[in-house]
Amino acid sequence: MNQAVNPKPTITDVARAAGVSKGLVSFALNDRPGVSARSRDHILRVARELGYRPSVSARSLSTSTSYACGLVIARDPEIISADPFFPSFIAGVERVLVAEGRALVLSVVGGDEHEDAVYRTLAADKRVDGVFLTDLRRDDPRIPLLAELGLPAVTLGRTPGSPFPAVALDDTPGTAAATQHLIEQGHRRIAHVIGPLRMMHAQRRHAAFAATMAAAGLDAGLVEETDFTAAHGAAATARLLDLANPPTAIVYDNDPMAIAGLGVAHERGLRVPGDLSITGFDDSEIARYVYPALTSVRSDPQLWGEAAARSLLAAIADRDPVADVDLPPAHLVVRASTGPVSTGPSPSGPAPTGARA
Amino acid sequence: MNQAVNPKPTITDVARAAGVSKGLVSFALNDRPGVSARSRDHILRVARELGYRPSVSARSLSTSTSYACGLVIARDPEIISADPFFPSFIAGVERVLVAEGRALVLSVVGGDEHEDAVYRTLAADKRVDGVFLTDLRRDDPRIPLLAELGLPAVTLGRTPGSPFPAVALDDTPGTAAATQHLIEQGHRRIAHVIGPLRMMHAQRRHAAFAATMAAAGLDAGLVEETDFTAAHGAAATARLLDLANPPTAIVYDNDPMAIAGLGVAHERGLRVPGDLSITGFDDSEIARYVYPALTSVRSDPQLWGEAAARSLLAAIADRDPVADVDLPPAHLVVRASTGPVSTGPSPSGPAPTGARA
Repeated sequence: MNQAVNPKPTITDVARAAGVSKGLVSFALNDRPGVSARSRDHILRVARELGYRPSVSARSLSTSTSYACGLVIARDPEIISADPFFPSFIAGVERVLVAEGRALVLSVVGGDEHEDAVYRTLAADKRVDGVFLTDLRRDDPRIPLLAELGLPAVTLGRTPGSPFPAVALDDTPGTAAATQHLIEQGHRRIAHVIGPLRMMHAQRRHAAFAATMAAAGLDAGLVEETDFTAAHGAAATARLLDLANPPTAIVYDNDPMAIAGLGVAHERGLRVPGDLSITGFDDSEIARYVYPALTSVRSDPQLWGEAAARSLLAAIADRDPVADVDLPPAHLVVRASTGPVSTGPSPSGPAPTGARA
Repeated sequence: MNQAVNPKPTITDVARAAGVSKGLVSFALNDRPGVSARSRDHILRVARELGYRPSVSARSLSTSTSYACGLVIARDPEIISADPFFPSFIAGVERVLVAEGRALVLSVVGGDEHEDAVYRTLAADKRVDGVFLTDLRRDDPRIPLLAELGLPAVTLGRTPGSPFPAVALDDTPGTAAATQHLIEQGHRRIAHVIGPLRMMHAQRRHAAFAATMAAAGLDAGLVEETDFTAAHGAAATARLLDLANPPTAIVYDNDPMAIAGLGVAHERGLRVPGDLSITGFDDSEIARYVYPALTSVRSDPQLWGEAAARSLLAAIADRDPVADVDLPPAHLVVRASTGPVSTGPSPSGPAPTGARA
């Protein structure tokens, strides 16, 4: 044992030395099908030369695992395309899983009806080695279910009484910062267009909005609840702008709704931000390319996916307590869609929209 | 046998009569774990009362299947969030799979390096019952591999020599219609901002653009190849508008790039469509809510996902030849971002953008 001189080589070292991916090394070391005899021989030779020794847990892993992680989403399948959170989160998860030669088992159950049955099957058939729990609910029934099934899990966010490691990304500072930014620009009537209130993150963000407004002595009563789609975002914007005393700024809970709000404002000939300031949430790729470029809150669901996947793999490999992870909280990215209320004359008709002057 | 009087009841009839989902009926009939004894008794009683009889293939299915379908994407994981195709396609697939109590095994392999190994593992471990083949390539090596593995598959689009059923959606009429629409509006200098040319669909769409331009005696030489991201769309737009003789219309190969192009045009003070007409591709949800609303090509990846899932389940269940499916071709949806070239004076500076007058 000359570990002090030669640090213990890892699977990453073997992959680098063999000039292949970590996934392929894992396939070869675990004697899984799909690796050519030639590649396997090469990888095993490199591993021997480096003195690589799989850990006991890694070896037991090779015989009892499914090499897959599960994600069960209890929402309408369209949420996968309508909201950028899940595609980004899944991209982050896949970035980590691919390096380990693992797959993601994705199941979208429209309602909660047979969610139970899906988890039980995933566990009983050894279809997955562990699962990601997203969209946490109050007294979430999935927590005791998974504990009973003995299925490793990671929760996105903390929830009381959970035995599972959490990967938390606090998004409330982002909403609070967006609201505070608008207050500092002189706005007094600010509306919040939020997602479904049955989701804990929607409740948390709205509480952050309301607390920030209250701290400034402002009324937080202008609220529109939506299903997160651009269609709902557009409709909510139209209702707010139709008020006798409409808001001069709107905080949206995702970017597609904010971009739809931008469209409604322009359609009505309002200047953004002169007549209406707009903030989004997610800071999706398109945000910086719309005009005016969208002020948004960056919460980095992809980073969240990567961290959640790493925690879940650790929980699966060790069965030891895995520490909770706190990612950097969501933060505001100020661009051109927010500014002071204009004192100049407002144009009439859908003419000089998008003007910043 | 009184089928003529009482048509043979299907799993859908059982689900309706029992007041549960088809997925739960399938779970109960196949005696899979996760269904409570009470629910199972109820469902089996209803099935008996209706005279439901599972087909032989359905019964053999219950013992030898993994209840999952596979999708291996050989692209950077970020494609899942950067381009709306995959989220929509996956949403369509899930819509069909959830009703059958099945999951999707999703694997994103960065390059082609261990793509082979992934398919071999999926087949050998009976991890999936069949797979979707997307992003077909010339002489696609996955076709002979899957044939050798005996793994049922469905290809998205037809490819020569494939033994697998195809679900095809011809997107070239959409690109041709967008180009023709712009020509009819009087445009002569029209550019095409396309995806990666190594993908067959990008080549096909560009051929449709070039043929339509040629038929009108116009030059199809203004082309920008991109990676489908909004960043590339914005950069391509900037390069085109910087030309000494810039185009008056741009055909984009997806909506995020077109929306980024809209942003660049507005930033430069160009009127859309007065100074620049813009068409997208995908007709994603946000397209109709940007300002001006985006003329786009609807190819309906969600419908494609649903049809592909139905074909794959049929191929898995019967192992009989499943007919190729031709979905309605992509078609143009004309909105406000396209129109004749304006003859009025062009504004200077980023002022009255988005104006349609």
